[in-house]
Amino acid sequence: MRGFPLEVESNIGDFMQILDGRATAAQLKKEIADKVKKIQAAGGKVPHLAAVIVGDDGASQTYVSNKVRTCEELGFESTLIALPSSTSEAELLAKVHELNENTEVDGFIVQVPLPDHIDEDKVTEAIKPEKDVDGFHPENLGRMMLGLPTYISATPNGILELLRRNGVKTTGKHCVVVGRSNIVGTPMSILMSRNAEPGNCTVTLVHSRTANMQEVCASADILIVAIGKAEFVSADMVKEGAVVIDVGTTRVPDESKPKGFALKGDVDFEAVKDKCSFITPVPGGVGPMTIVSLMQNTLRAVERKNKKK
Amino acid sequence: MRGFPLEVESNIGDFMQILDGRATAAQLKKEIADKVKKIQAAGGKVPHLAAVIVGDDGASQTYVSNKVRTCEELGFESTLIALPSSTSEAELLAKVHELNENTEVDGFIVQVPLPDHIDEDKVTEAIKPEKDVDGFHPENLGRMMLGLPTYISATPNGILELLRRNGVKTTGKHCVVVGRSNIVGTPMSILMSRNAEPGNCTVTLVHSRTANMQEVCASADILIVAIGKAEFVSADMVKEGAVVIDVGTTRVPDESKPKGFALKGDVDFEAVKDKCSFITPVPGGVGPMTIVSLMQNTLRAVERKNKKK
Repeated sequence: MRGFPLEVESNIGDFMQILDGRATAAQLKKEIADKVKKIQAAGGKVPHLAAVIVGDDGASQTYVSNKVRTCEELGFESTLIALPSSTSEAELLAKVHELNENTEVDGFIVQVPLPDHIDEDKVTEAIKPEKDVDGFHPENLGRMMLGLPTYISATPNGILELLRRNGVKTTGKHCVVVGRSNIVGTPMSILMSRNAEPGNCTVTLVHSRTANMQEVCASADILIVAIGKAEFVSADMVKEGAVVIDVGTTRVPDESKPKGFALKGDVDFEAVKDKCSFITPVPGGVGPMTIVSLMQNTLRAVERKNKKK
Repeated sequence: MRGFPLEVESNIGDFMQILDGRATAAQLKKEIADKVKKIQAAGGKVPHLAAVIVGDDGASQTYVSNKVRTCEELGFESTLIALPSSTSEAELLAKVHELNENTEVDGFIVQVPLPDHIDEDKVTEAIKPEKDVDGFHPENLGRMMLGLPTYISATPNGILELLRRNGVKTTGKHCVVVGRSNIVGTPMSILMSRNAEPGNCTVTLVHSRTANMQEVCASADILIVAIGKAEFVSADMVKEGAVVIDVGTTRVPDESKPKGFALKGDVDFEAVKDKCSFITPVPGGVGPMTIVSLMQNTLRAVERKNKKK
């Protein structure tokens, strides 16, 4: 298995199961590509995703080109709009308005971070909620809270799919979410508590001000960690039989790697894995699910439009 | 103290303190009325709240007339729009659009519940977020999640004010919220976890699917109960020294009362009070804070408009 140490596979306990994000994402991609083929065969419009990138941040460019490549893989149309870092806020907002009105484009994203002279909140709020396939617009977050049709943002949605498609039961379980970020921790805490499956958990949201972090984490049946600190979760923070979802990806210097760094999750995988019933590896866990979530949302944008017709 | 049994006052423990919603609301009202006087003295526009009521539900009529009366008390302008229960959804939406465009009206509410033939979500979403002083529009809920300027709905906002103005410390505490409703439990859980004071709690949201309700509640430093079941919280569910906030108001038949019923909270007040550091009574706790929260939001609508000028 690429990028995932082999010795783990031979060491796994009797009941531990890897939540394989690559395999689940591949399955999902196949389903999406099949739907696109059906749309095409019926003479319909294939999904069209546009991505706007401002400036030349290397990581952002990689993310965006991965998204464009996935579009091609699934039969989507895509448009990449690369703007110089000197782009003014007004110019970017004008581009957003243009994409809002462009009926060829079903959904679009503006890659963050944006240059310092541009107000990210303003840009997010300028995107039409119907086209906000990143699910970052306040109206879409509110609709998620209310259980109304919406776009759930990539990481939370990817985690829900990973749980759903691997048969992880959640109802009545204690789910502890570590980290209260706007794009992962907070929405995840709401989604896991709603009346649905996955969902129906008793949910505890913990963060930097939590007094007894070890104790709370160790009480979790399902532990979702999105705090951005490499190997933060140690074995004493995990209950025997817990489900552990690791959202972190921190680059840690490592001379032995070709790129000079290793990718580390928020969980000390080697120390924790044998206690778990399910665990996501890093890389190859939550990561591969996020791009496919964006594609799901873009397909949904087309389906919603067709429904309205 | 009106409406609040005297024997409680003589029985309170050394450290127990009543969170007196009536007194706190009276103080807040005074502050708001003073601000309105200042606006008026400076030749500004006083806040104007409009309330729409459809049909002749007795409880709704009482709520709305209390809101109008509070407007008068505070020097606000108010408009009451009473529509027959035969009003169609289209007619109500037309009224909402009219109020959205009416520059005299700073904020307005549509009293719920609405007749069955009207889609409440549709009506809520038709209200301009800037005028949605109830804070029920998805965009305002999303803005609350993101920590952006918004209107926080009446009950959660009233609870925050009650905690703030009575010096209840929350940072690092374990707050358990009982009930996951869209208008109280879920937003309250987010507000108590955000990076603010009140806030910065480790928050656990529990509900009908929670397995070990007694145990979780008994671990709370701050227990907020909004489940709508009279006297649901018994003494064994409350930790010594806890802060207890009771959002429930259930009418329980009681022949000895002039109205034939007694108002009961979600907490068995008599059984629990001596264990608490702070507790809200019912009535006279959270209830009086809600109308004044609506007034705060309406005043804020005017202040936001003036800021934009």
